Amino acid sequence: MKGFNLRIPGPTPLAPEVREALSQEMISHRGPEFAALFREVGEGLKRVFQTQNDVLIFTASGTGGMEAALVNTLSPGDRALVIVTGFFGERWLQIAQACGVDAVPLRFPLGKCADPEEVRRTLKASGPYRAVLVTHNETSTGITNDLRAIAQAVHSVDEPPLLLVDAVSSLGAIDLRTDEWGCDVVVTASQKALMAPPGLALISVSPRAWQAAESARLPRFYWDFRKMREYAAKAQTPFTPAVTTLLGLREALRRIEDEGLEEVFARHHRVGKFTREGVKSLGLQLFPDEACASDTVTAVRVPEGVEADEVIRRLHNEYGIVISGGQGPLKGKIFRIGHMGYVQEEDIQEVLGALKEVIK
Amino acid sequence: MKGFNLRIPGPTPLAPEVREALSQEMISHRGPEFAALFREVGEGLKRVFQTQNDVLIFTASGTGGMEAALVNTLSPGDRALVIVTGFFGERWLQIAQACGVDAVPLRFPLGKCADPEEVRRTLKASGPYRAVLVTHNETSTGITNDLRAIAQAVHSVDEPPLLLVDAVSSLGAIDLRTDEWGCDVVVTASQKALMAPPGLALISVSPRAWQAAESARLPRFYWDFRKMREYAAKAQTPFTPAVTTLLGLREALRRIEDEGLEEVFARHHRVGKFTREGVKSLGLQLFPDEACASDTVTAVRVPEGVEADEVIRRLHNEYGIVISGGQGPLKGKIFRIGHMGYVQEEDIQEVLGALKEVIK
Repeated sequence: MKGFNLRIPGPTPLAPEVREALSQEMISHRGPEFAALFREVGEGLKRVFQTQNDVLIFTASGTGGMEAALVNTLSPGDRALVIVTGFFGERWLQIAQACGVDAVPLRFPLGKCADPEEVRRTLKASGPYRAVLVTHNETSTGITNDLRAIAQAVHSVDEPPLLLVDAVSSLGAIDLRTDEWGCDVVVTASQKALMAPPGLALISVSPRAWQAAESARLPRFYWDFRKMREYAAKAQTPFTPAVTTLLGLREALRRIEDEGLEEVFARHHRVGKFTREGVKSLGLQLFPDEACASDTVTAVRVPEGVEADEVIRRLHNEYGIVISGGQGPLKGKIFRIGHMGYVQEEDIQEVLGALKEVIK
Repeated sequence: MKGFNLRIPGPTPLAPEVREALSQEMISHRGPEFAALFREVGEGLKRVFQTQNDVLIFTASGTGGMEAALVNTLSPGDRALVIVTGFFGERWLQIAQACGVDAVPLRFPLGKCADPEEVRRTLKASGPYRAVLVTHNETSTGITNDLRAIAQAVHSVDEPPLLLVDAVSSLGAIDLRTDEWGCDVVVTASQKALMAPPGLALISVSPRAWQAAESARLPRFYWDFRKMREYAAKAQTPFTPAVTTLLGLREALRRIEDEGLEEVFARHHRVGKFTREGVKSLGLQLFPDEACASDTVTAVRVPEGVEADEVIRRLHNEYGIVISGGQGPLKGKIFRIGHMGYVQEEDIQEVLGALKEVIK
C-alpha cells in the first residue's frame, strides 16, 4: 500500500533506511553498542548544529526541550525578553510564565518577521534582561526570523543576555550557525528536518549557558543539564533514553552527512521556493511576507468561499496527502504545507496538483 | 545475525510484531490514524493498569513520569513520606527534594521489602503527610513491595495521603490493582513489561489526584496533567508524541490482550521462580529475601573471588547475553537478570547455562 504523502510541518516522512533501523532489536542503554550509537549521534548533531558546544539528548518532545532550556538557565523573577512572531513564540512565553520568569513579550504581527532593530532598541530601552527567547522558524505562520541579525542585536548590549533559540523546525534545513552567531542554547527535535521519529529533544549548551546552569534556581531533576553532562562523559544518559529513535536518528544524520549540509540547505531553499511559486501559480496567496517566508513550511491563505477543513479532509481522503490547518487565531484562515527533511520537488508537485483540483 | 539475549531489567526485548510496527511510515499526530492509535492504546493501558482512571501518555522516560506525578499533585513545602527500599526509592526522594517538597525517607535495608506495619506506625506517629511515595518493584535489589498492604496502611489514617506509585518495572508483569487498592497516581514506562521501546511514560490519575492537580503549585508546563486531559478528549497529546513508540506499544498491548493479563502474571511468576531456582542450583545466592523476591528481576550475590564486571563482559562477548550489574552501593556486589515482558523459560535457561560456564 502506498503510504500518505505527509506534508505537515512535522513529524516528517521517514527515509527507508531510517524505517529499517527502527525495527532493529533492542539494545542495552548501558552497553558498548549504545555507547557507539550515542557517540556517533552526538558527533553528527554537533556538525548539524555547527557547534563545538555540548549537544544534550533528552527523551521528550521539542516543547520539553524548551522547558529544559529555561529551567537550566533562569531563576524565578529573572527578566526575559520573548520575541513573539506566532504560536511558538507564545509557547516560549507560556513556559517562561509557568516557571515564574518575568517574561516580557515583544510581539510582531502574524506573518511578519521580528525586526532586529526593534529587538536592539527594546533591549537598550527596557533592559537589563537575563535572556532573550526567540523562535528561529515560526511554523505557525511560515516565516523564518533573521536569527543572525537578532543575535547581533542581543550581543550589542552591555552584559548581553543569554540567547535561547527554538530551532525545532529549522535546524538541519535552514542555516543556523550556533557558535558563529553566539547562540547560547539551541533546541531542536528529532521529527522535523532531522527526519527521525518524534521523541527526542536535542539541545546545545554554550559555556555561558553552562555557567548559568550552575546558579539557576528553578527546580529541575529530569531536565537537569548537569546530570546529562555527567552521564554523557561515559556515552550514556542518566535515564533510559528512546533507544529506537536514536537508531533512526543515526541513519538520518548519516543521510545528511552524505548529502552535505550545504546541499541540504540549498535543497530546502529550492523546494521552499518551488512550493511558493507553485502556490502562487494556482492563484493562491501566501500568508506571510514573502521576504521572510520559511523554507521548511509554507502558509497559504484560505481563499474566500473555501472551507480549510474541507480542503484538508479531501486531500487526505481522496489523494492521500496530509497537510495542516492554522493554529490559534489562524485556524480556518490558512493551511500549511510542510517541506522539510525527506522531501523533494516531486512531493510538492503532487500536493500542488491535488490542491488545484480540490480548490476548483 | 542472531541478536543478543537481552536480560537486563529494561529496556526489554521486542516481539517480532512490535519491531515490524516500528518501521511503519510516519503519520500525523493530529489526524484520524493517530486518533485511532491513541484510543486503542488508551483502552489497552486501562486494562493493564486495572483502572477506570485516566491514563496519560507522556513522551519521556519513567523518571520523567515520576517527576510529572510529583509536580502535578504537590506544592513546595508539602510533606511526603518516601518509602525507600533501594536506588529507585532514593530517586523518588531526590525528585521530591529537587522540587522543594519536604520529603521524609522511611528506609528499609537493601534486599528487604518495606514493612507495611512500619509504614502505618510512621504515618500515625509523624503525620500528617500529603503523599506517600513508593516503589512497587525495586529493580535495584530485586524485590517487590507488598503494595496492597502498603495501600491499606496509607488508607488507614484519617485524611489519607495521596499514594504515588512507581510501577515502572512491575506494571504488566505483577498484579497491580490501581482502583481496588486505591492508588492515586501510578507511573510506568513503555520499555519494561509493556515490551515496547523506551520513550513513553504512562500515568494513571485518580479523582483525588485530579483534585490535587487543581491546587498544586509546583511550576509545570510540559508535565501539566490538565493540558494532557484537555487534548486527550480529542484523542491527541498537547505536544508531538513519540508516534513510533506508540505504534509499537499498540502491538505489545494486543499481545498482552491475546495472552490474557492473568496468564501474563502467571508466566512472570513461573519464569521468576525458574530463575531463582536455577541460580540457586548453580550454588549462587539470591541477594534479596526470597520471600519478597521480584518476578521481573533477579538479583544475585557475586560470589567471593569473582569479578562482577568480568562476568558481565564475558556473557556479552562470548555468549551474546546481556545482564546488569549493581547500582550505587551494590555496584560489584550483585548482578541482575531481567525477566519481564517478552520472556520465556528458555531465555533464562540460556543465561543459566552460560553463567555456569563463566563462574566456573
